[in-house]
Amino acid sequence: MNVAFIGLGNMGGPMARNLLKAGHSLAVFDVVQRNVDTLVALGATAAVSAKAAAARSDVVITMLPSSPHVRSVYLGDEGVLAGVLRGVPLIDSSTIDPHTARDVATAARARGNPMADAPVSGGTGGAESGTLTFMVGAEATLFERIRPLLAQMGRNIVHCGTPGTGQAAKICNNMLLGISMIGVAETMNLGASLGIDPKVLAGIINTSSGRCWSSDTYNPYPGVMDGVPAAQGYRGGFATELMLKDLGLATDAARQAKQPVALGALAHQLYQLWSAQGAGAQDFSSVINLLKQHEATPGTPHDRL
Amino acid sequence: MNVAFIGLGNMGGPMARNLLKAGHSLAVFDVVQRNVDTLVALGATAAVSAKAAAARSDVVITMLPSSPHVRSVYLGDEGVLAGVLRGVPLIDSSTIDPHTARDVATAARARGNPMADAPVSGGTGGAESGTLTFMVGAEATLFERIRPLLAQMGRNIVHCGTPGTGQAAKICNNMLLGISMIGVAETMNLGASLGIDPKVLAGIINTSSGRCWSSDTYNPYPGVMDGVPAAQGYRGGFATELMLKDLGLATDAARQAKQPVALGALAHQLYQLWSAQGAGAQDFSSVINLLKQHEATPGTPHDRL
Repeated sequence: MNVAFIGLGNMGGPMARNLLKAGHSLAVFDVVQRNVDTLVALGATAAVSAKAAAARSDVVITMLPSSPHVRSVYLGDEGVLAGVLRGVPLIDSSTIDPHTARDVATAARARGNPMADAPVSGGTGGAESGTLTFMVGAEATLFERIRPLLAQMGRNIVHCGTPGTGQAAKICNNMLLGISMIGVAETMNLGASLGIDPKVLAGIINTSSGRCWSSDTYNPYPGVMDGVPAAQGYRGGFATELMLKDLGLATDAARQAKQPVALGALAHQLYQLWSAQGAGAQDFSSVINLLKQHEATPGTPHDRL
Repeated sequence: MNVAFIGLGNMGGPMARNLLKAGHSLAVFDVVQRNVDTLVALGATAAVSAKAAAARSDVVITMLPSSPHVRSVYLGDEGVLAGVLRGVPLIDSSTIDPHTARDVATAARARGNPMADAPVSGGTGGAESGTLTFMVGAEATLFERIRPLLAQMGRNIVHCGTPGTGQAAKICNNMLLGISMIGVAETMNLGASLGIDPKVLAGIINTSSGRCWSSDTYNPYPGVMDGVPAAQGYRGGFATELMLKDLGLATDAARQAKQPVALGALAHQLYQLWSAQGAGAQDFSSVINLLKQHEATPGTPHDRL
């Protein structure tokens, strides 16, 4: 197939490479020339704009940083909809808010192009190894049509419902993940300060009703598990600033839907606080260090009021 | 064995019955005469006080509503320590704060009685069927000594560490559970208002990083699972007011330990809010109804400031 691939960063780059390996012809575009050059060296063709890339394609895939980029890449004068042929399917794998995803899909449909939102989980490792999970919001016929292509970049291709629901599924899962991680962090810290061995506490929780992925697979307390970011100084993993972005999308979507998310909003603020303290690049489970007790500054508490 | 059993309510009653069935002699005490009568009809002997029950026993078990009851039943003039023989082990299965548990255990040890805190999970159903989980805070020798007796009332007997850690384990697990449940409730409501089918969303979460007991075993959204309180009008299960009690213990223990529990404290307030709205007797997963969107009162929003 002739694939237009727009957005060749940490995620889009390896995804596009997997499509090249699978034998497709790629027309690529990115605002960063170096990203384009890397793909061209592997056999892709450079396009001068999203519009130009889309013009000669059987399918368009985008992987962009945020909602404004998606709007402009699809709806701008040099954008996808200005160039793409009628009927060509469009797939946006960016993680953005569901309302924007739905708006852009509506504009695409009005132009005669079926569109899917297909955000991913699995990180850069999953993008490279082709083991991503795609959460797809699309009409059923479009889902079946694009599924084989997505399967060349990912392992689990999940149909979530109509356009927008792929984004909804992703931000819902990640909001719950963000809440659970802070819940586990508070719990492990509290247990430790109450004198219970953190490994014993994790063992009890993991066989009881507090059980969750953040505790049994990705425990944030150092020394409880091997092979997790907590065992490696919180390097690697899923950055605090990416969790912050997803919680921003979730709370923003909740605001627009007038849906209370009290814990989601507080979790968002706690990751914001942690990021503001300089930890944006650390794995998000490092938020346990925001919540732990540190050595007090010496001195007697005073009250001069 | 001669067992003193003090506190014969919804939990203590069936636990004591299981010890009678196992062949022990029971001296029982409760402030509610009817609870005593029920056990006496089954073969137990009534004692006039906690002190009197303890005086002729090889082991003392208590199952009481809260910390003040535990202090008074152990430390009062008519209490256990005033009557019990030196060396007799004491087991408190009440759910109370870890600091009180440790204080009472220290007082008991000074009197020559080893003491374990052994709160349970599994509810009244587990108490009746003898399938409770005991979370035990005790010195290792005491734990081994009391384990066979606890196994006649429960299935999982877990050693958490020194005195106080049984309580710590229980309130830590339940704090995380209380947080997770609200997290799942917010997430399910948000997904539904963003147009994703709740069953599909639960399926995605349960195979992803948002996975937790509150989602995959006890989902609060009606129609997602069978056999859970959400499928039965939130009857049965674990009452909101009991979760509120446990979160009160957790946040109180955190305050005393100067340990930040931001989500735990907000979760506590949300269950408090829900209980104040009259839902204390409903299963705690009904908190999803506090967080969902209800029909708006008719009328145009006005601003007269």
